[in-house]
Amino acid sequence: MHCSDQPLSSTAKITDITARDGFQSIKEWIPTEIKIRVIDELVAAGVKKMEAASFVSPKAIPQMRDAEEVVDHVLSKHPDVELVALVPNQRGMRNAAAAGVREVSYIISASPSHNKANINRTHEESLADLAAVREQFPDIRINLSMSMVFGCPFEGEIKPERVIWLLTEAMRRGVDSVSLCDTIGVGNPVQVRALLSEVRRSAPDLPLSLHMHDTHGMALANIFAALQCGVDCFETSVGGLGGCPFAPGAAGNVATEDTVNMLHRMHVETGLDLNAMLVAVNTVRELISAELLGRLAKARSYSELCFYSPVVS
Amino acid sequence: MHCSDQPLSSTAKITDITARDGFQSIKEWIPTEIKIRVIDELVAAGVKKMEAASFVSPKAIPQMRDAEEVVDHVLSKHPDVELVALVPNQRGMRNAAAAGVREVSYIISASPSHNKANINRTHEESLADLAAVREQFPDIRINLSMSMVFGCPFEGEIKPERVIWLLTEAMRRGVDSVSLCDTIGVGNPVQVRALLSEVRRSAPDLPLSLHMHDTHGMALANIFAALQCGVDCFETSVGGLGGCPFAPGAAGNVATEDTVNMLHRMHVETGLDLNAMLVAVNTVRELISAELLGRLAKARSYSELCFYSPVVS
Repeated sequence: MHCSDQPLSSTAKITDITARDGFQSIKEWIPTEIKIRVIDELVAAGVKKMEAASFVSPKAIPQMRDAEEVVDHVLSKHPDVELVALVPNQRGMRNAAAAGVREVSYIISASPSHNKANINRTHEESLADLAAVREQFPDIRINLSMSMVFGCPFEGEIKPERVIWLLTEAMRRGVDSVSLCDTIGVGNPVQVRALLSEVRRSAPDLPLSLHMHDTHGMALANIFAALQCGVDCFETSVGGLGGCPFAPGAAGNVATEDTVNMLHRMHVETGLDLNAMLVAVNTVRELISAELLGRLAKARSYSELCFYSPVVS
Repeated sequence: MHCSDQPLSSTAKITDITARDGFQSIKEWIPTEIKIRVIDELVAAGVKKMEAASFVSPKAIPQMRDAEEVVDHVLSKHPDVELVALVPNQRGMRNAAAAGVREVSYIISASPSHNKANINRTHEESLADLAAVREQFPDIRINLSMSMVFGCPFEGEIKPERVIWLLTEAMRRGVDSVSLCDTIGVGNPVQVRALLSEVRRSAPDLPLSLHMHDTHGMALANIFAALQCGVDCFETSVGGLGGCPFAPGAAGNVATEDTVNMLHRMHVETGLDLNAMLVAVNTVRELISAELLGRLAKARSYSELCFYSPVVS
């Protein structure tokens, strides 16, 4: 799998992260029943995999303090949905496992300074903790959620070799997959192609996904570049909600509905229904106090922004 | 020039169209001195080519009624800037020529329905008028500004063969170059590559530029796809201003500063200074009543959104 001019995959997989990354940065408390309503609407729109909660200190991120309830809802009401929860450390992992979570996103930043600011650990400490987590929970799937893979507010541009180093160390400790996260939205399509080529050389069989914030408007361009490299899993958030509490200036994620719209228009199927997705977008717009930066979020129905019979319904 | 995996060009050319496409859709009158201030700031930021006015009926588009004054300012104060004015017909061409314009964008829509709605002509009538314009003004450069090349609010998806047909007919009548315009922002990167491949087959030497609206957030992805096809001229507007008065629902153009930011980050030089460009963005934000959809338009200086020492200064 190289970044050559191969035809794009005919399908792509969306992991919706609204209920975790989207909600975590919103200061005003979102009642659990509204979180659950958005989750239910996402499932109704066809979402098959979602990151729905974060098992972190409620002091650090109060918005995630109902993680157990949210997880319990997804597990009981949507048993076919692949549920992921974010954990920063062993304690988070224990709580997630106790709640019944079977896959976690374990976060380490490619930038040591951001890793320190975000979870107060050196790389060595994070890797030791990862090894302990892997040993204690051999049956739980661990996705390495690697932040700042293109650039960092504290350290500037992050070179691919630093990503490869951390990836290799994490693979030695037994991660099952990796999400490459452009936490502040500064990556460009040329960087995406360069990084993915390097990653594929080092880890040809590792399941990969991309997590692009849209601060500079380049997220969809980066997703197109990734598709050209054969990467077809993307983490996205309704309306473009999101941000990192410990990354100054970062704007939201790429919007789920904008990503799906572009994919469908390119005949890359996702299994998601855009009109049903906009129901969730409307709920977020009406019930949650946050600016929605996504483009389709301006419309109440897909036909309002479509202008003509869509390429796919 | 095919859409293969060639290295991107190391340079790209921006035609800023703020003062024409950006301003024309703003209902509230923009005083001529503010238009001129924005133009001066764009030139100070390094803009070498701009579409600065439209010679249309002041009844149809009152905002453009000071076209002569604006053109006179650019010609006298910025003689090194390549000035373009939009014309829809022979009358517009006569007025533009009388004002001293040496290059025009002559508009025809790839969609017959939109051509009728926009300039009240059939394709045959437009082509006959183009031939007359060409004959009467042999020394004025004519750029065909072809609207709706990917999709139309009235006719749906526009297939490449329809674009090729109109392009071929226009070339027979002597146009010097073509701008392919996604007037409603529905084109996707796969369509861009497909269309540009077809166009290159039919017109290998014709100077081409791309004019992408950002309604669905795909404009930067489309620009990246075009660069991969060897097309490196782009029409863009400060803050993402723009729209088509006769294309319901269309949002703004891709923002000049967002485009330049992505290009510079990919080491594609434009000769423009982003911090100086944001001076023009700030003027537009403060003095003109329009929502700015561009991403960098949220920042007062590039460093606010850059997060670290930029790839290029």
